Amino acid sequence: MHELEAIIHAADDAINREDLDAVMDFYTEDATLVVRPGLNATGKTQIRKAFSAIAEHFNHSLHVTQDKLIVVEGGNTALVLGKAEIRAKDPTGPEIFIEREATYVFARSLDGAWLCAVDNSYGTSLLRA
Amino acid sequence: MHELEAIIHAADDAINREDLDAVMDFYTEDATLVVRPGLNATGKTQIRKAFSAIAEHFNHSLHVTQDKLIVVEGGNTALVLGKAEIRAKDPTGPEIFIEREATYVFARSLDGAWLCAVDNSYGTSLLRA
Repeated sequence: MHELEAIIHAADDAINREDLDAVMDFYTEDATLVVRPGLNATGKTQIRKAFSAIAEHFNHSLHVTQDKLIVVEGGNTALVLGKAEIRAKDPTGPEIFIEREATYVFARSLDGAWLCAVDNSYGTSLLRA
Repeated sequence: MHELEAIIHAADDAINREDLDAVMDFYTEDATLVVRPGLNATGKTQIRKAFSAIAEHFNHSLHVTQDKLIVVEGGNTALVLGKAEIRAKDPTGPEIFIEREATYVFARSLDGAWLCAVDNSYGTSLLRA
């Protein structure tokens, strides 16, 4: 397994536990999260708020996994493609299941750690939005 | 227009003119080009050879444009999504028209210039290959 696959699985696990401190450790200081088509969150403060709002929106039942991951490294950056599966099991509402072909950009910091710089779970579907 | 859109249009123009010296100037030293699913070219030497082979394969009639580009910046990296249109007008063969939802990763170098670190014209379709 590529190092980045383990990192993304660990990030998903942190999201699913709603451990936002741990989630934020996966991002660069000036990362961008595509919250939904047309709405980006940039920087840790905005991204944390977005995750908090998303958790609230799904009544704290969000469960994210990656069915398949492909890593294409180019020096100190990497493109990661993921088949993201998003479930929400909120007992008060209908069960939600969303599949997305996600695109993530990771950058290797000076100490060698990979951090997420662009988190776009919508992938190329933004071209059709 | 985002600076990166102009850069990508200029790179396409260099590809279409088969000016490989100019094409290579758009890439980082250790960039990766996805030549086809399962085959990557890494580093300028390999990428230049791949472009040369692709030009040959299309009998020097390759014409690449981007119909739509979306840029998502995250600090010194950027994810670019492109609706790539690939035409080959080789008079000795059938006319070819391929549309792809491409994914490019750019990194900003220390002097501020954007360079392509990952060139994956197949986008998230690699997850289905």
